[in-house]
Amino acid sequence: MKYKMVISYDGTMYSGWQLQPNAVTIQEVVENALKVAIPTPPRVWASGRTDAGVHAEGQVAHFKAPEGLNLYRFQRSMNGLLPPDIRILSVEPVDSEFHAQFSATSKIYHYHISLGICHSPFTRLYSWLIQSDFDKEKLKTAIGHFLGEHDFTTFANSASEGSAAKNPVRTIYRIDMVPEPRGFRLEFEGNGFLYKMVRNITGVLVECATGKREPESIPALLEARDRRQIRMAAPARGLFLVQVNYGQEVAPEAPQSP
Amino acid sequence: MKYKMVISYDGTMYSGWQLQPNAVTIQEVVENALKVAIPTPPRVWASGRTDAGVHAEGQVAHFKAPEGLNLYRFQRSMNGLLPPDIRILSVEPVDSEFHAQFSATSKIYHYHISLGICHSPFTRLYSWLIQSDFDKEKLKTAIGHFLGEHDFTTFANSASEGSAAKNPVRTIYRIDMVPEPRGFRLEFEGNGFLYKMVRNITGVLVECATGKREPESIPALLEARDRRQIRMAAPARGLFLVQVNYGQEVAPEAPQSP
Repeated sequence: MKYKMVISYDGTMYSGWQLQPNAVTIQEVVENALKVAIPTPPRVWASGRTDAGVHAEGQVAHFKAPEGLNLYRFQRSMNGLLPPDIRILSVEPVDSEFHAQFSATSKIYHYHISLGICHSPFTRLYSWLIQSDFDKEKLKTAIGHFLGEHDFTTFANSASEGSAAKNPVRTIYRIDMVPEPRGFRLEFEGNGFLYKMVRNITGVLVECATGKREPESIPALLEARDRRQIRMAAPARGLFLVQVNYGQEVAPEAPQSP
Repeated sequence: MKYKMVISYDGTMYSGWQLQPNAVTIQEVVENALKVAIPTPPRVWASGRTDAGVHAEGQVAHFKAPEGLNLYRFQRSMNGLLPPDIRILSVEPVDSEFHAQFSATSKIYHYHISLGICHSPFTRLYSWLIQSDFDKEKLKTAIGHFLGEHDFTTFANSASEGSAAKNPVRTIYRIDMVPEPRGFRLEFEGNGFLYKMVRNITGVLVECATGKREPESIPALLEARDRRQIRMAAPARGLFLVQVNYGQEVAPEAPQSP
């Protein structure tokens, strides 16, 4: 029987999601808890890896376990076994065809930015502090260049384990700027994101808003298909994987003519 | 010259604001930083103490220092000296009559409540988790009984150092329920709050919402003027001192007839 879990974690203390030798990862800690909670410990498949220091409000993972798992007791038992910075928010049985990574149709990431002279004690581990003058109009102009379908090769780091995507074309449905008490967050929704793509895009957006780059330079950046054009990815601590969707494709770009 | 600072702190690791022997308090850490930042280290007066584990987004404190303090450099230097869970958000010169505690005309506290089977990793240190069924209508009815001017003796713990208020009458201007992602916050605004008053009121409000007490019992509780009638204060971790106001009295209860 296949089960789907929604997992939230504070990534501050972990070397990312994916199993690694000589580093504590979230996958390892979750699998260790499963070894105690379930007689035949399964492997866990997530919707995608998150990097060291990146957080999740709604990572999704699936695993196989004997039928008839008591879901309420399983969730309580897992949350008792896990450290408090990793929580199982929900668990449910799913169709045997379901795959946390390959069935995903879209994802939502939030990137939090604080503006001002110093971090608040409450956002320092969860946002990027920008101390320079910040031009929100330039940010909005820059955002416009990323919306829709593009080849995002320039904005994708090559993954260390050779799992670089074969097809670097992705569609971004929206990048919304939502005000927060001491700054704002960028809400990214797309049909998929390449390795470090949200952080590389955010780095360029912030360069535009702080006068280090012109928004009009972005089309040429995309065109170049060359990661070396990007100076700096935004820091991991500001990034949250918020939601993974498995419904129908959302927000098609334009209606098909009949 | 008198200066006013706005201070934000994560109270998790501290034994409250006020200096104590054998315990690390926020006042102590701030005064130790001032000893380095200013030639003649001053005493710091806050708008009021906060208890162990209580947080602040906008605690206000004043201190005396030589005229001509470079405010920008002072703030940067203080934030360099302080641990990252305490931040000086702003500093400005004030009138010699100003007193952080006695000039305050109103205060705003927020109390964060999470609803559900488990805490999120991001709220566990900053909210009270309620796992029982929660009746928001009963909460609203209960809130109504606290608004306006009352003798809040029942809801005031006696302070350990005998600084109990001589006059236990306070006015609560509003208690608003504001939705948050996994629960809500209660926003309290009043002309002043007695020792542990917000946490004692929140404890009773939650008792009403979870069916352990009827909202209609609250007038008699207020009438009794007896702290022993209260079973439990809400935990410290959910409470934030958000703002201290020094303007004119706000929101008078009813217009005076001419």
